[in-house]
Amino acid sequence: MKNTIELPEATRKRMVQLCQILKNWTDIKITSRQICEMAGWKDSLIRHDFWLLGYNKGVSNGYIAEDLLKKISAVLGFETSETNNETVKSVCITGLGRLGAALLDNSILDSSLFRIKAGFDSNVNRVEILRSVFPLYPASEMAAVIKREKIEYAILTVADKDAQSMLNRLVSAGIKGIINMTNVVLKVPEGVKIENLSVLNALKLVI
Amino acid sequence: MKNTIELPEATRKRMVQLCQILKNWTDIKITSRQICEMAGWKDSLIRHDFWLLGYNKGVSNGYIAEDLLKKISAVLGFETSETNNETVKSVCITGLGRLGAALLDNSILDSSLFRIKAGFDSNVNRVEILRSVFPLYPASEMAAVIKREKIEYAILTVADKDAQSMLNRLVSAGIKGIINMTNVVLKVPEGVKIENLSVLNALKLVI
Repeated sequence: MKNTIELPEATRKRMVQLCQILKNWTDIKITSRQICEMAGWKDSLIRHDFWLLGYNKGVSNGYIAEDLLKKISAVLGFETSETNNETVKSVCITGLGRLGAALLDNSILDSSLFRIKAGFDSNVNRVEILRSVFPLYPASEMAAVIKREKIEYAILTVADKDAQSMLNRLVSAGIKGIINMTNVVLKVPEGVKIENLSVLNALKLVI
Repeated sequence: MKNTIELPEATRKRMVQLCQILKNWTDIKITSRQICEMAGWKDSLIRHDFWLLGYNKGVSNGYIAEDLLKKISAVLGFETSETNNETVKSVCITGLGRLGAALLDNSILDSSLFRIKAGFDSNVNRVEILRSVFPLYPASEMAAVIKREKIEYAILTVADKDAQSMLNRLVSAGIKGIINMTNVVLKVPEGVKIENLSVLNALKLVI
């Protein structure tokens, strides 16, 4: 399912965080003040977000948490994994160095709608030695596997120097969303989304 | 060095990315159009960022790349590691599970101003078995080590359920910047900065 509403990036980020909050929320209702206290946002901001989402179902003293979670999940284009098995989204990991190898047990995506279906590395030895709950392949088979397994998303954990060329190959193979864990700023063609998760760059933002 | 200009978060993020671009730039000059092509930003956006930075040293056909990098580094509160050794910033890793252990060789921060000085885990066995280029300690020694080593930044890689309590302990010990690699939305007191690097939440943003 594609999201039908074009939301600003900042709103999308807040809504993804809000989903995490709502999943762990135990009360029936949640107020916008409680949301803001949990997440550190301004009250006016979250009300504006809900307006953008077309969500105006606030009750006298807050929102019904479950209802809010459903609405946001639908608008963002994902459902909770419990409700709909058909929306499972397939992911691959490209680059099985120390960081990539740390993601090999799929547990980071536990109980989410994402499943890692394949891992790739240009070092054939590495592919044969590493243990994984999903199959690993040499990078030469990447395009074929991505098409066969209908993989749409990729986690990029290659060396910085190989990042752009590997991204280009992923995009050519049909990948439309990339988690860039390298330190390099990468060019993506229109229609492909990218999120940058560089630890180094994040550290520079918390100085 | 603290940054003297309060920049919007989005501008800071772009400037950190721009520094990465400039470090790999080989020409003397760079135009705002080239920057936008590399990073996928709008030209008006980057010009506004430079205005916020107080950078108005554009020459007839672009900016002097080295000059621009120096200015941005100074405003953001970090220098290139080559120029100033005194500004080295100390970091710790809290939680040495698969993801935390993947960061143990410090290579992710190579040639940056950040150095990982310590790793912590509540499992004493794990602390003794894992190999690392910096010392590892049981979590019980966390506050003492952070103070002794003057560590100001922490990478949080504990299990989701332990994330908030561990963050509270880090903040009490004096940590002022946190890279949150868990999937949980965490509350931080005013004055403490946090960047969220959850792979799962990032995947939800590229759908």
